[in-house]
Formats: sequence, C-alpha cells, structure tokens
Amino acid sequence: MSEQEIEVKGHLIDSMVLTRIFDKIMDLGGDFNVLEFTIGKKKNELSYARLRVNGKNRKHLDHILETIYIEGAQPVMVERVLLEPAPRDMVMPSNFYSTTNNTTQVFYDNDWMDVRNMMMDKCIVVDIDSKTAECKMIRDVQKGDMIVVGERGVKVIPEERPRQGVDIFQFMSSSSSSERPTLQIARKIAIDIDHTRRNGGKIIVTAGPVIVHSGAAESLARMIRLGYVHGLLSGNALAVHDIENALLGTSLGMNVKDGTLAIRGHRNHMQAINEVFKAGSIYNMVNKKILKSGIMYECTVNKIPFALCGSIRDDGPLPDVVTDIIQAQKLYRHILKDADMVLMLSTMLHSIAVGNMLPARVKVVALDISQPVVTKLLDRGTTQAIGIVTDIGAFLPMVVQQLEKINRVRESG
Amino acid sequence: MSEQEIEVKGHLIDSMVLTRIFDKIMDLGGDFNVLEFTIGKKKNELSYARLRVNGKNRKHLDHILETIYIEGAQPVMVERVLLEPAPRDMVMPSNFYSTTNNTTQVFYDNDWMDVRNMMMDKCIVVDIDSKTAECKMIRDVQKGDMIVVGERGVKVIPEERPRQGVDIFQFMSSSSSSERPTLQIARKIAIDIDHTRRNGGKIIVTAGPVIVHSGAAESLARMIRLGYVHGLLSGNALAVHDIENALLGTSLGMNVKDGTLAIRGHRNHMQAINEVFKAGSIYNMVNKKILKSGIMYECTVNKIPFALCGSIRDDGPLPDVVTDIIQAQKLYRHILKDADMVLMLSTMLHSIAVGNMLPARVKVVALDISQPVVTKLLDRGTTQAIGIVTDIGAFLPMVVQQLEKINRVRESG
Amino acid sequence: MSEQEIEVKGHLIDSMVLTRIFDKIMDLGGDFNVLEFTIGKKKNELSYARLRVNGKNRKHLDHILETIYIEGAQPVMVERVLLEPAPRDMVMPSNFYSTTNNTTQVFYDNDWMDVRNMMMDKCIVVDIDSKTAECKMIRDVQKGDMIVVGERGVKVIPEERPRQGVDIFQFMSSSSSSERPTLQIARKIAIDIDHTRRNGGKIIVTAGPVIVHSGAAESLARMIRLGYVHGLLSGNALAVHDIENALLGTSLGMNVKDGTLAIRGHRNHMQAINEVFKAGSIYNMVNKKILKSGIMYECTVNKIPFALCGSIRDDGPLPDVVTDIIQAQKLYRHILKDADMVLMLSTMLHSIAVGNMLPARVKVVALDISQPVVTKLLDRGTTQAIGIVTDIGAFLPMVVQQLEKINRVRESG
Amino acid sequence: MSEQEIEVKGHLIDSMVLTRIFDKIMDLGGDFNVLEFTIGKKKNELSYARLRVNGKNRKHLDHILETIYIEGAQPVMVERVLLEPAPRDMVMPSNFYSTTNNTTQVFYDNDWMDVRNMMMDKCIVVDIDSKTAECKMIRDVQKGDMIVVGERGVKVIPEERPRQGVDIFQFMSSSSSSERPTLQIARKIAIDIDHTRRNGGKIIVTAGPVIVHSGAAESLARMIRLGYVHGLLSGNALAVHDIENALLGTSLGMNVKDGTLAIRGHRNHMQAINEVFKAGSIYNMVNKKILKSGIMYECTVNKIPFALCGSIRDDGPLPDVVTDIIQAQKLYRHILKDADMVLMLSTMLHSIAVGNMLPARVKVVALDISQPVVTKLLDRGTTQAIGIVTDIGAFLPMVVQQLEKINRVRESG
Repeated sequence: MSEQEIEVKGHLIDSMVLTRIFDKIMDLGGDFNVLEFTIGKKKNELSYARLRVNGKNRKHLDHILETIYIEGAQPVMVERVLLEPAPRDMVMPSNFYSTTNNTTQVFYDNDWMDVRNMMMDKCIVVDIDSKTAECKMIRDVQKGDMIVVGERGVKVIPEERPRQGVDIFQFMSSSSSSERPTLQIARKIAIDIDHTRRNGGKIIVTAGPVIVHSGAAESLARMIRLGYVHGLLSGNALAVHDIENALLGTSLGMNVKDGTLAIRGHRNHMQAINEVFKAGSIYNMVNKKILKSGIMYECTVNKIPFALCGSIRDDGPLPDVVTDIIQAQKLYRHILKDADMVLMLSTMLHSIAVGNMLPARVKVVALDISQPVVTKLLDRGTTQAIGIVTDIGAFLPMVVQQLEKINRVRESG
Repeated sequence: MSEQEIEVKGHLIDSMVLTRIFDKIMDLGGDFNVLEFTIGKKKNELSYARLRVNGKNRKHLDHILETIYIEGAQPVMVERVLLEPAPRDMVMPSNFYSTTNNTTQVFYDNDWMDVRNMMMDKCIVVDIDSKTAECKMIRDVQKGDMIVVGERGVKVIPEERPRQGVDIFQFMSSSSSSERPTLQIARKIAIDIDHTRRNGGKIIVTAGPVIVHSGAAESLARMIRLGYVHGLLSGNALAVHDIENALLGTSLGMNVKDGTLAIRGHRNHMQAINEVFKAGSIYNMVNKKILKSGIMYECTVNKIPFALCGSIRDDGPLPDVVTDIIQAQKLYRHILKDADMVLMLSTMLHSIAVGNMLPARVKVVALDISQPVVTKLLDRGTTQAIGIVTDIGAFLPMVVQQLEKINRVRESG
Repeated sequence: MSEQEIEVKGHLIDSMVLTRIFDKIMDLGGDFNVLEFTIGKKKNELSYARLRVNGKNRKHLDHILETIYIEGAQPVMVERVLLEPAPRDMVMPSNFYSTTNNTTQVFYDNDWMDVRNMMMDKCIVVDIDSKTAECKMIRDVQKGDMIVVGERGVKVIPEERPRQGVDIFQFMSSSSSSERPTLQIARKIAIDIDHTRRNGGKIIVTAGPVIVHSGAAESLARMIRLGYVHGLLSGNALAVHDIENALLGTSLGMNVKDGTLAIRGHRNHMQAINEVFKAGSIYNMVNKKILKSGIMYECTVNKIPFALCGSIRDDGPLPDVVTDIIQAQKLYRHILKDADMVLMLSTMLHSIAVGNMLPARVKVVALDISQPVVTKLLDRGTTQAIGIVTDIGAFLPMVVQQLEKINRVRESG
Repeated sequence: MSEQEIEVKGHLIDSMVLTRIFDKIMDLGGDFNVLEFTIGKKKNELSYARLRVNGKNRKHLDHILETIYIEGAQPVMVERVLLEPAPRDMVMPSNFYSTTNNTTQVFYDNDWMDVRNMMMDKCIVVDIDSKTAECKMIRDVQKGDMIVVGERGVKVIPEERPRQGVDIFQFMSSSSSSERPTLQIARKIAIDIDHTRRNGGKIIVTAGPVIVHSGAAESLARMIRLGYVHGLLSGNALAVHDIENALLGTSLGMNVKDGTLAIRGHRNHMQAINEVFKAGSIYNMVNKKILKSGIMYECTVNKIPFALCGSIRDDGPLPDVVTDIIQAQKLYRHILKDADMVLMLSTMLHSIAVGNMLPARVKVVALDISQPVVTKLLDRGTTQAIGIVTDIGAFLPMVVQQLEKINRVRESG
C-alpha cells in the first residue's frame, strides 16, 4: 500500500470540488481518510480539507493522484515541477504533462508561476532564465525547450462557477434545449453582450454561412456597426455567401429579400468569388466601392480583424482565406487573445476550433438549430457556457433589436 | 402473356403522371406499347395517352394495373365497381379496396360517383339505394355495408400541383430546410393565411406544448383574436401549460416573462390541473373569470371549437380532455371538415393524426425545430405542404407581427 | 429576518446533497451559517450537517425551506404532516404537496411512514385508520381523502448513486452520445439484463413500431422466448406492424426479408388490421393458428402481459387496444409494478408515460437514433438511467446475440 | 416577344427531362408550343420533342434558354461555343459558364467535344490547338486560358437513372430514413461493393473519427485487408484516433475493447500525436514496427493511397497531414480520379468536399446517424446516391461480415 497526504482549499462544497475528488478516488479503486476538514461557516469563507489517499501500490497511487491534482488537490509537501528538454523540434518528452484549459501554475524555484496562454491538450514550457511558463502547441515546440513532465509541481485551479450577478450565464447553467422562452433569452443575451462591452470586454464572433442563407447577415452587420464585435473568426463560405448576398442579393441562388429563386442563381456564388479575385481582395473590393454592404464590408470599414481559414470543401477559396491551417490557427489565437466573450453562431467546425483555444474563464454562447451540435460545443469545457437551440435567422434579429433598444434608451437617458 | 388497354388523360407530362406510370410498369417487370399519344400543344390543353400493358400472366398483370390505376390510369372499357357486404361489424371483406387521400370516384350504375370524406387507408362503402359512396374507418363499418373490393371501377384523380399564383406553396414546393430566409418565409406564410381567410377559407391549427415553453402562447392567442383560427386540435399538455402560464406566469416551472426559475415552480402544472378540476372545466374557469388570458381562454371567448385528445403520457388529464381516442378521432374529423389550411405547430403526434384525416387538396404548413420530424410530416401525402425547420418561439411572433401589419394596412387603406 | 435550523444526514459530499442545498439557498437569495458539520472519515460513514437558514421574512424563508426539504434537509424539530380533506372527487386542497419520484416519508402519529407507489407529480393521501400513506393520481382522489398539504413533516430521501459494482449503469452515468463503442455497450447491456433476471428482477420493455420497420422484430421476439421480458408496454402501431410483418412479411409496404417493395404493399397494414378484427383479438389469432410468429405472438404464447394504449394517430385501432387512456394508464401502472429494469426502445410517447410512473430507483435504458429524444427521456429523473444513441435495427440484434451467447455458456458450463 | 426553337432527345418522359423543361419555362414566366413530339413506342426507343419557346424579350428568353439548356435542351441551330481569354491568373471573364457535375460537351470547330474532369461549379477551358476542353477550378485558371462564356454551344447530358439491375442504388432511390430494415441494407451494400470491385471498379472511402469512437475501426481495417478500399480521404482526427486506438487501445480516453475509462486517458490522443512526430511520419511508424494495426496501418502496408487534409480544429496536426488546403484538394482530386463508388462514412466535412469533386455518374453511399447530415450529402447532385441513417459502430461490422461471407462462399465455391 502506498499513501500520500493531499490538501485542497476553496469553496469545496459549493463548487463540488470535494465531491469530484472523493468520486475519482473511489472510481479508481483507491481509498482515503479525511484527516482534517473545516467548512467555511459563511458564504464567502473558504473551506479546507486534508486527506490521506491510499493506493494499492506506487503506480496505482500515482494514477489516483494525477487524477485528483487536476481537480485542484495538492500534495502537502510541494515538490518542484519536473522538466525535460524536447529531444527535437515538434517532439515532446514521452511523459509530457498534457494541459487542461483551467488556470494552471507550476512550482519552480520555490515559487508558483502562472502558465500563460492556457489552452487544452497542449504542453507547458518553462523558460529557466526568465522564470516564466507558457502553454505551447506541439508544432511550436523547439528542440531543447524545457517541458513539464509528470504531474508533480503542477497545480490546476478550476474555475469557480460565478455566484453573484444576474446575467444569462448564471441563469441558464450550461444546459441546452429548444423548450425555453426564446424572446426572453434573446433579451438576456443582448443585456449580457452590452454589459460585457461597456466594461471594456472583448467580444469575438464565430459564424457559419447559414447566417446568410437564413437572412440574418444584416443583423450581424448591424452588430458590427454598433460596436459589439471585436473580431470575426470564420471560413471561406461565410465570406463568399455574404459577398454574393451583398453584390447580387442572393444566397444559395435564392433572392434573400423576397425568397424567390434568382435567374442564373446557380452560378451566383461562383460569380461572387470571381469578383473578389478580380479586385484582388475583400479590402480592395471595399476600397473600390464594389462591395458596399454586408458582414465583410462592415468588418473592413470598422477595422474589425477577421480570420477566414481554409477548409477542404472550399470553393475558390477567396484570396483572403488563409489556406494553410497552421497559419490560420495562429491567426485565430491572435484574434482570440484576451477575449471575454465568444458568440458561436451556427458553425460547428470553427466553434470547436475556437473552443479548444479558449481558457475556461471565457463566456461562451453556442447557438445552433441542432441540439447534438450545441451539446458537443458545450462539452469543450468552458465553465461559463450556454447553449441555445434555435433558428439563427429568427434569433439574431431579436438580439439585435434588443441591442438597438438598449442603445436608444442609453442615448436618450 | 396477359394484356389490357389503358388510357390516361390530363397534364400528363407536367404532372409527371406518365413518368410514374412508365416507371411502375417497368419496376414491376411488365411491358408496354404506346398506342396513341397526343400532347397538349399549349400549356392549358390536356394530353392523352393510350397504352397496351402486358404482364406475364393474369395475376401479374392485375398487380401492375392495380398499381397504375392509383396513378389515374383507366382501363379503356370501364367496368362496374365490385361490391361485397361486410361480414360483421368492423370487419371488411378480405379483398377490400384501400383508399388514398386523393379525390376518388367509383363507377356504379353506369356513372361515376364521387367518394365523400376521402381519407387515407380506409375503405369505400356504396349506398345502393341512394347511389352515394363514402369513405369509412374500420371501426365504423357495419355488417352488411356494401364495400368496394378489388381495383375495378375505381378512379383516382391525383391532385395537380397548382401552377398559377404566388403563394408560399408554389414557392417552396414541399422541401424543408433550416437554410432559408426565415423572416421572408414568415412574411409569405402570413400573406397566405390572410389570403385564405379573406376568401372564406377555414384554418385549423394543431399545436404542441412547446408553444408555451418557448414563449409563443401569446402569439397564438393573438392569432385567434384576429380571427385567423377556426379550430384547434391538440392534447392535454398544451391546455395544462397554457393555463399554468395564464394563472401563474410559468411554464415548466420557469417564469415565461423574465426567464427566471419560479419558487415552487415544480408543482405549478399540478396546481393548474387542480384549478381546472375545481372549476369543473375550462369553460367554467373562463365563465367564473378565473382564467382570463391565453390560448384556451381565447378559444372559449371567441367560440373557436377545440379538441383535446388524451394520450398515455397525460398528467391529469383535464376534465375537457376526450380520454377515449375513438371519440377523440371523431371530434378531430368533425372540426377538420372542409378545412382549407392546416398549421401544424411543433407537435408530431397530433399532426400525424391530422395528416391521416386530410384529403390531399388541403394546404399544410408543418413546422418543427427537428428536420426529421418535418420530413415525416411532409410524407403524409398532401400535395400542397411545406415544411419549415425553425424555432416556434421566434417564428410565430414574426408571423403574427406580419398579420397585424396586414390588418393595419387594410384598415387604414 | 426569519430563521430555521435544519439538519441533513447521509453521504453529503459524495452525493452532492450539501452542494445542492447551499446552491439553492443562495439562488433564492437566502443566507446560512453552518452550525455543525461532521464528515464521514471513511468511505462508508455518514456525514451530518446542521445549518441555520435565514430568509428576508417568513414567506421567503418558507420558499427556501420548501426547496431544500426536497433535497433531504429536515427541520431540526420535526413537525407532524398537515392533512386536509379533498373537497370533492378529483379535486385536491389548494396547498397540496406535489410529489417527486424519490422515496418519501411523512411524519404522522410520532413516526415516519413510507409513502407507497411513489410517482412524480402526484399527491399523497394518508389513511388515518390504517396509518398508511399512498401516492395518488388526481383522477383517483376521492372526496374526503386526507391529503398532505405544505412541506411540513415530509421527508424526501434522494436515491444515492450506486457506488459498487461494474454494471453499465455505473459505467455510463446518464450521458448519451453516438460516440461510444457500440458493440461494447451492447455486450454490457446484455450482461446487465441477464444479471437482473438471474436475481429475480422484473424487466419491462416499451417499444415503438420502428423496431419492426428496422428489421429488429425477430430480435425482440427472441428476447421474449429467452425469458428476458416480463411485460410489454406499447401502442397500436407496434402490434399492427408486427402482425403485418408476421402475416405478410412486410412493414410499411416493404418486404422485410429482402428489402424490395411488395406488390399491394400500401394496403398491407390495413389488411393486417382487418385480419385481427376478423379473428376478434390477437389472442384468438394465435389460438386459431393464424398468427404464428412475431412479438405479439411470443407475448401471447409465453403469457407475457402486454398493454397497447390508444393514441389519436391510430389506424384501426386493433380490438386489443385500450382506447380510453385513463384505463390504459392503470394497466401500464399495473404491469410496471415492482419493475427493476425498463428498456425504452425507440418510442418517445410510451417511454415518457412510463418515465412518469417509475420510482427513481428503477434502472432505465433509453435508446433512440435521435439524441434530443434520448436526452428528453433521461430528464425524467431516474437516478440509474443510461441513454444510447443508435440504430435499433442494428443494435438490438447485437444485444440478443450476446444474450444467446451468455445462455449457451451457462448451459454448457 | 422573342422566340427560339429548341429540341431535345432521349428517354424524355421516363427521365422526367420534358417535365422539368416545361416546369422551368412556366416557372420563369415564359411560354411554349410543342411543334413536334414523337414518343418512343417501346421501352428502349428514344423520344424527341421540338418546342418553340417564347420570352418577353431577348433577355428574358435568354434566361429561360439558359435554364433549359442545363436540362439537355438544344437550340435547333447549334452555334459555336463562345470563348474569352482569362484576363489574369485566377480570374475568369465575367460571363463565364458555371458547370454542373453532369457529362458536358461544347460545340467547337463544327463538332461536339467532351469536357474532361467534370466537377460542379467550375469553369470550362478550351485548348484551341489540341481541340480539347477541360473543367478547371478558379485557382488553376491562368491568364489567357480560353474560357467558355454564356450558354451557347454547351450541351449538358443529364445522367439517366439506371433502369436495369438489382443493386442497392435502384432499390433505394436517393431517400434516407432510419425506418428501413438495417440488416438487409447492410447485406445489399456489401453485395454492391463486392460487385463493383469484381468488375474492376475503384472504391474510395471518406471517413470521420466517429468510426474509431464507435468501435468500427477494426471493421474498416478489415475492408482494406480484403481489398475493398482503393483510396482513403480523411483528416487529422481519424488518423490520430486510429493511432491512439492502435497504440493505447483507447479513443476519447475510453478503452475501446471493454468500454471502461482509461487511466491518464485524457492525454492519450496527445501522446499518440507525439509518437508520430517522434517517428517522423505514419509510414515510419509502420516501418519501425511501432504501429502494428488499425486503419492507417492497413493503408500503409497495403499501399492504399490516403489523403489527410488539415482543418482549423486539428490537434497537432500529424506530419502526414497536408496543411495547405489547396494542396489537399489537389491530392483529393488525384485519388478520386476515375472512382466508381464512394462510401461516405460519418464525416460531413470531407464528404461535402468529395461530393463537389465527383461527376454525377459515381455511386455514392452516404451514412450518418443524423438525418439532416445525410439529406445534405444527398443534395450534392449525384444521380446514384443513397443515404443511410444508422449507427456506424453497429452498421459497418455488419457490412464487413457480409463481405467476408461473400468471400468465403466464392473461395469454397
């Protein structure tokens, strides 16, 4: 039998941390004794627990400890993080520590250091000279990088569910369903978007082409004009359909304004692509006053950074599309830096990509007409995520109406 | 080898009737020669085709003929319909003719008679004295009823797809998708609803409880007040949730107006049920001024007939619910009589029931957030059906806004 | 300010009970102090907490207490349950206590009494003479029944998640996804079904007609023959399609054995219905050796009780169908009595009905090809429920193969 | 009023070509007279129709003609195709002809030339010297390429639905549903796959990672070993999860063999990626005997070409992934060249990409558990496509069992 004393501090009960720790020890066939436990007597006091954890042998115990350290438990004697150099570019040591998207610290040189740029499923590189730690993707790993191995000296600080306030994220608590009062949810999301921006927050949108097909492109364009979007992450299809809509008034060959089928409609999206190649880029089209409305137009004139990443199904793709996905991921991460809120609008591909890049603290609204898609997006592990199963073509106009109302009230008041 | 001459008349090419006849003969391993074919030279002229159909033997030929008679083909020599008496109540002769939902005639006493009350999958009873024919459900069959057997002397007249006009039913042609301009479709449907009513048409609504959960109950109530609903077909759950919403402001324990969780919310729907039992009926609740708003209230004060059918999953059910489903089906058919348009709003169970009772000529709008559900509803075989994949909580308010606008314009104009 | 001391006992942390109590007090705007807390030092010891709960006023406090009593908290001084007589048949006192599906006790005559026949969303009737308490549906309430009102003297004992053992219910823990190893899940479910039966457990199946369309009818029939089904709950459609399949080899007009379209296939289900009416009942059909295989045949010859409830969409319905849904609900409850496991196979309507009638301790397997349907079924509140998103036509044969293998091994062993 | 005589030849009624032509003329508000019509009197004789089409003016008429030329109609006097040079690399003349995926010919130098490499939504380039025509993607267009503009001199030859034979493609005729006999469909597809290969056909598979999660990886690996796969088109995720499964026995952290959660499972896919980077490539891993089973292993040892295209959501991605999507599309097209059958297994992204590259004549089987996904894939416009709504984890093993049975029978026979 092997044993190890561990401790854990925080809103242990409230945040279910202790529950999960007990659960996991037992799930893995381990045993434990509670040596000490003080519960916060008042809502805002912290609780503290000290446990002795037993495993069948050292290996078994290590498995258990690794699992509960992720939940925020700590060995009572903190040991220094273990580092090993990367043997080659893009190769990690075999026993590398794989990150979560929670805030993480490593114990090095007798102190805890924050790991910067936390993302899920990456490794941690410690710069011994500058005494800093950073989260790195495998393709960015360079020979000789000092990479954290094992679980020792790594502390994960799980996000605590926010308890105060009345925003939509407290209200809906991560579940998704189409059986909710739609208008009311639209209103709450509008309030939260507005609140985020007023507090200097950064709002990023991922969006799929169904926004254009369903007639909601003008709504997103208005959100940009109103200043509620600080970055747009999408792909070729959104841009092509938005430009087709702006130039020719159609989407999938249907007139968006009156819903009739357009003559020559079947070739309109190819024509839109050709127009962008003629101009050379979306920026040039706006500059030459060829493109005068729509989502991409508003991004351009309002200087909102956007990233269009390539995908194997692209027609064209447009000259603005970043066709190498390693480059596209870098651009995405750059635009997402310090985001406070992400609206995922009817695009599974880009939303999953973004979900993987986000630290757990960022607010996420995931919207799609398919419940399985919404459920999948919520699984990405952010603590403050809500899923909405609705028709973007009906929902986004409602949100924008509310945002405009809020703005009118503020201006007049 | 057996053979039979058949003929068929109408917009043969335009309506694809001839295509289907050729297809089916070949699918069944038969052969044919075109003996005569005159195509309508102008859009509105009828075409005519006469074919010799061959089968391997009489039985094989009969199978083929049966199949193509459903498509509107006729033997060149019309033979009298064959009748056999029902051996007992609720029992049909073994070789009974099973109906489609298309207009159907039987040849009897040297003349074609229309079959009344056409529904799918029923039998035809001929009254020899009065020389009338009627479609009957199996449970209504009485011993001695003269029932049509075999295919001889039965003519099916397939509905032709309407070619003129601009309503939504021409525009969308039976497909369903969430990739459509939502606002535009809402507008078109409003125009069509208004147009139907102005021409004295009868509009029936089937509705599920998600209308209340999603916050659209007030919209449906307004449609009733505006005079756009001539009958409501639903079940216990819609009424319970609507009354809960009207009395207590909640649905599924959530405050519909502001989306927060209600205190004691989990028992509200049981309380609503208890209130109806106390009053004795929905009518009494309205009369005693206990129920003062909502869908059921509007039906009651506007004298709109409604049918609430029971189902195995009912809580309660309310005293107004018809718990025997044979009786409930009769009431449904009664309310549906001579309907011109049916709106199927987020309820698969009641919509399929209604679909089975409708002749093919009735306009149907089937709406749900799940595409497979919409597809299933469109399969019921009406010729003028459109499917809309959207969120009822966002869509119905749009439709009602449009209806109100149309009314304002008409009044002011 | 109002206050009340409460206490709660059990595996408080492990089962998350304390977490939920803290959560709810704060959600409702209340406050609390932990007066005493002893944590079970070993896995199997109970924990105990005593709290002082504060509300803004008596009404506010009562709301909070009501909410946390549902979680198992108790006022420190137990007060006798309050009873009021039902004013009329089918009418409860206004302040009636609405049940959960968890084990529940009421404090009466200085003792805790178990409430029998627990179901969700019903009321509790205390028989003063016999000192027993029972859960009743609203339509069964009789004038003068002594009905529990308010929350006082009612104790809810939440089911604790099973911790030991290795069955599928520990393994999958309530989530549903199509991203699971299908074969492996089939094997685990087979083991669990077999284990339940060997321990004398009662297994009930709810099944929809897609079982027949997808070609899995023979598999369900084999499960019945092998003795794994102790009751079948379904509706008209399953029986009609099963009998059509047995008599004519078709389902929805398609030959199930070779997948081709049947000649005259469109009328086969009407013909099947007619054959049952001719014989008078399913039992008669089996007796007269007209029906010789299939699900309904196996139920009949193996004397497995079944209930076919009517629904508004029924064709026919068959003479065996209980057309009044109040009667059908009684029959369902009768067959479900003391069930240990329920398999819900591709039928939302009947599965929701059954879910509402089950106490939380029953094991439930909910299977459908649509994830939203599975999610909805899991929401019914049983503690041991698993959802499987798969194709019943491929999955059920796998389960039955495993059951047969288990039987062969046992016999040979 | 403008007019133009057109003619059309073929199985006009049978293939619905004439129906569509009449429809479209009327849909666009045009008019027509049938000048001549001879119907094939026997099943295999061709029909011929000559029509005078009228439009309101030249522009209106041109719109109509353009629309019906796509359906195979021809002006009675054939005019030479019009060509214009591409003004710059990647820029087409404004009036470029946008292709369908049907067989297409252009009339040049008094003769009809086949257009090679037909794909949807591309342009046609005529090589004046060699008198050849080819379909080109916009990014492949070079300055000076002679590109077809307008509709003149372009003939589209719609694929005719195959009438003879008994394969699954005749049987299922493009619809998708989960209400089909699953086992039977699996058997038919196996027969068709086998038949295709025996006739020297080329079979390409697109596959998503759910194949691994659902436990079907071994089945696909066996199909490759049996020689039924001639190319694999996928992305990073399939390869990563397949290699994780092969090296560590897990997928998404779950042991695929027994369905339990793996210790350290959360980092297994990162470890798998690291192992590939260590080896340098999948090929090296196989060569060094590190990777010894699974889909990627079988492709490597059986020398089956595969293409892994990058996407924005990739972890890693592996060194074998083509991260530039323009290059990836080229590789996809190369592997797809002359394919006879494509199996699309639970991956929407790659399947849509492939659908856009396929000529209409290729047989496509599209399989997914979500009906909307299957419907979307079938919309890609191939004439011989079937959709299957099922669980790949249960379905693919069935198909492979059938294939193995066919092989055993053949070998022993």
